[in-house]
Amino acid sequence: MAEFFNVLPPAEALGRLLARLPPAASVGAESCCAWDALGRVAAADIVAPESLPAFARSTMDGYSVRAADTFGATDGLPAWFEVVGEVPMGMAAGVSLGVGEAAIAHTGGMLAGNADAVVMVEQTQRVDDRTIEVMRPVAPGENVAQPGEDVGAGEVVLPAGHVIRAQDIGALAAVGIGKVLVARRPRVAILAMGDEVVHPQQRPGAAQVRDVNSYTVAAQVASAGGAPVRLGLVGDDYEMQLAAARDGLARSDMLVLSAGSSVSVRDRTVDIVAELGEPGVLAHGLSLRPGKPAIVGLCDGKPAIGLPGNPVSAMVVCDLLVRPAVYRLAGCLVPPAASETTAILGQDVPSAPGREDFVPVALRPAEGGDGGGNYPIAQPVWGKSGLIFTLVRADGLLHVPADSSGIYAGESVRVQRF
Amino acid sequence: MAEFFNVLPPAEALGRLLARLPPAASVGAESCCAWDALGRVAAADIVAPESLPAFARSTMDGYSVRAADTFGATDGLPAWFEVVGEVPMGMAAGVSLGVGEAAIAHTGGMLAGNADAVVMVEQTQRVDDRTIEVMRPVAPGENVAQPGEDVGAGEVVLPAGHVIRAQDIGALAAVGIGKVLVARRPRVAILAMGDEVVHPQQRPGAAQVRDVNSYTVAAQVASAGGAPVRLGLVGDDYEMQLAAARDGLARSDMLVLSAGSSVSVRDRTVDIVAELGEPGVLAHGLSLRPGKPAIVGLCDGKPAIGLPGNPVSAMVVCDLLVRPAVYRLAGCLVPPAASETTAILGQDVPSAPGREDFVPVALRPAEGGDGGGNYPIAQPVWGKSGLIFTLVRADGLLHVPADSSGIYAGESVRVQRF
Repeated sequence: MAEFFNVLPPAEALGRLLARLPPAASVGAESCCAWDALGRVAAADIVAPESLPAFARSTMDGYSVRAADTFGATDGLPAWFEVVGEVPMGMAAGVSLGVGEAAIAHTGGMLAGNADAVVMVEQTQRVDDRTIEVMRPVAPGENVAQPGEDVGAGEVVLPAGHVIRAQDIGALAAVGIGKVLVARRPRVAILAMGDEVVHPQQRPGAAQVRDVNSYTVAAQVASAGGAPVRLGLVGDDYEMQLAAARDGLARSDMLVLSAGSSVSVRDRTVDIVAELGEPGVLAHGLSLRPGKPAIVGLCDGKPAIGLPGNPVSAMVVCDLLVRPAVYRLAGCLVPPAASETTAILGQDVPSAPGREDFVPVALRPAEGGDGGGNYPIAQPVWGKSGLIFTLVRADGLLHVPADSSGIYAGESVRVQRF
Repeated sequence: MAEFFNVLPPAEALGRLLARLPPAASVGAESCCAWDALGRVAAADIVAPESLPAFARSTMDGYSVRAADTFGATDGLPAWFEVVGEVPMGMAAGVSLGVGEAAIAHTGGMLAGNADAVVMVEQTQRVDDRTIEVMRPVAPGENVAQPGEDVGAGEVVLPAGHVIRAQDIGALAAVGIGKVLVARRPRVAILAMGDEVVHPQQRPGAAQVRDVNSYTVAAQVASAGGAPVRLGLVGDDYEMQLAAARDGLARSDMLVLSAGSSVSVRDRTVDIVAELGEPGVLAHGLSLRPGKPAIVGLCDGKPAIGLPGNPVSAMVVCDLLVRPAVYRLAGCLVPPAASETTAILGQDVPSAPGREDFVPVALRPAEGGDGGGNYPIAQPVWGKSGLIFTLVRADGLLHVPADSSGIYAGESVRVQRF
């Protein structure tokens, strides 16, 4: 019985792969409308062409004043101001302040000429149409956003490798950047292999199953900002598998092979990865459950990952290896963190030390008085190897680290949500 | 000075809105290729048309046997089996077992005729070409996935309202479902108002600013599975604002108004929401910082949300109110949980009881010996009201609940990631 030759912890296998990839985007860049850039990776530093705010801006509703005129003001001895005008929203100040003068200011509006602070309306009292009392002194600059305080011209707004979020798009709009250079979406070729696998819309023969992994992997690749290229299915003929993999990799930036988990099939995946380019196989097996029969390789600069056939294993390995590799190909060194939640474990989870375990769990709201505060209960969803619905019934994965021999019911755990 | 009239906690404002919306998708359904359904909401229960597995399947590499023949086997007294054949992957069993007979089985393959269990290859010893020793008994069904064990024909695979994930797509593929009925993407009309606001690609005049909120909100709506419809800008003319809002709402399922935060502007938003339909305004102000000047309404069955002009407030309110409303319009009662992480607070955060606070925080890896395990440090990013780059420099929001008067540095907190 052939054994695994080069079993590595998942993080080390990933590290070996990433260490051989260039830190910058290796997939090239393309121009993208800034408003459509959500989730894309900046391909170069994006620099603010101008300062923001462009003018001293009130951050409150109230009155712009010369701060010195408010010094010493108290409830008992308020400072009196003559209201000499108003600076309407979106208008340059048409009024300038002398000693003891104030002008109505709106949140986001410009200050009156000579004003250096804003008194909040809540700190004032109307005396008559043209007069207010100010009950509290303001310091120079108080309730004012200074020019360039948000961002300075020439400052890096978003660094190369940054994954663009909703607020980043807003910030680009704020400084007038309508187009950004982003990494091309890494193309990930996905090949499913095996005589037993048929297309989902075909009726399987006896002992056949439909292709699952091509579709979960494609969705995971798309979630990571990649462009999945499903190559389809090829039966158990080594030369045909090799040709399909070679052709797919030539058209893509990365290759994912999904095959069965039996030893002979794994060996064939190893041979394909070894044959497609240098240095070939980096890890043959991971100290991981599920997911041990994974293969990690690099073929002439392009990552090649062999997934176990078991769909649960395939998803776990895809998450641990394919996802960060897709981000790295786009030049992102630190992928967005997976969504996680703290939960209370509902049942003992045994584990073998020296191996990382990922256990599918369903989350349900805690009942009152469980001692877990408002943390949900994480209930393991056990299922035999190869059952895809185990993951459908789960809300996330519980990670049992390699140095743990298990986790007891009632312990607080971190669950990575799907 | 006009005050807020109907200030509610954000959850209560949301509850009042959602209570008036139908639980099922109100936006109608459309057919979608299952492979493209990531993030879409199932519009009806999706039922498995067949059972999975369709055949008793080995979950291990080894030998299919009649379990009874292994009873009593030990290392010292192994059971002997004659290997009478092999069931290749994807092939119906061409061999049937008699007493003391075994057939080679592959992970995912069919069992031989008469076999009811699989012995793992690791529990066997080859004696010669046709003979193996089995060192451990197996129970009937051991290492076998039974027909229907993954999912039964007629079982609900994904309930109506479920947001489709990568593994769900795999599960649909597994049972041969290539098309699904999903909720149409809720159309959310977004209108920015104010004389001071210009299009991002225009050069602002003195005291003007570029439109930010239309773009952050559009990205947030898209993230929630909605279809943003940016209506553009309209100046401070009530009749024009009303007409633009009415027209936008007629073409959409929901309306988001972004205006300044000054009192007069808020009043105008209230008037628009009141005029567009019944019951009109549900909450005028939220016990929330930032985000107090928000308006929540319902106009003849369509949600209408008024956002504060401050981009930080707008994002927080959008996340708390617009996002769940978009999911609800699509028939999803429990939106996917926001991404969160546990962190150690790096600095005291004061807060007023009775008000929920959301504080932007940057996350940085903990240094050794900080007592926080491997939790990151959450450092508040303070910034004056209205500074969009506060959020660009932050990695998430720290939620300070209404019953808290602040959180001390060193406490463990949950941070909602962007």
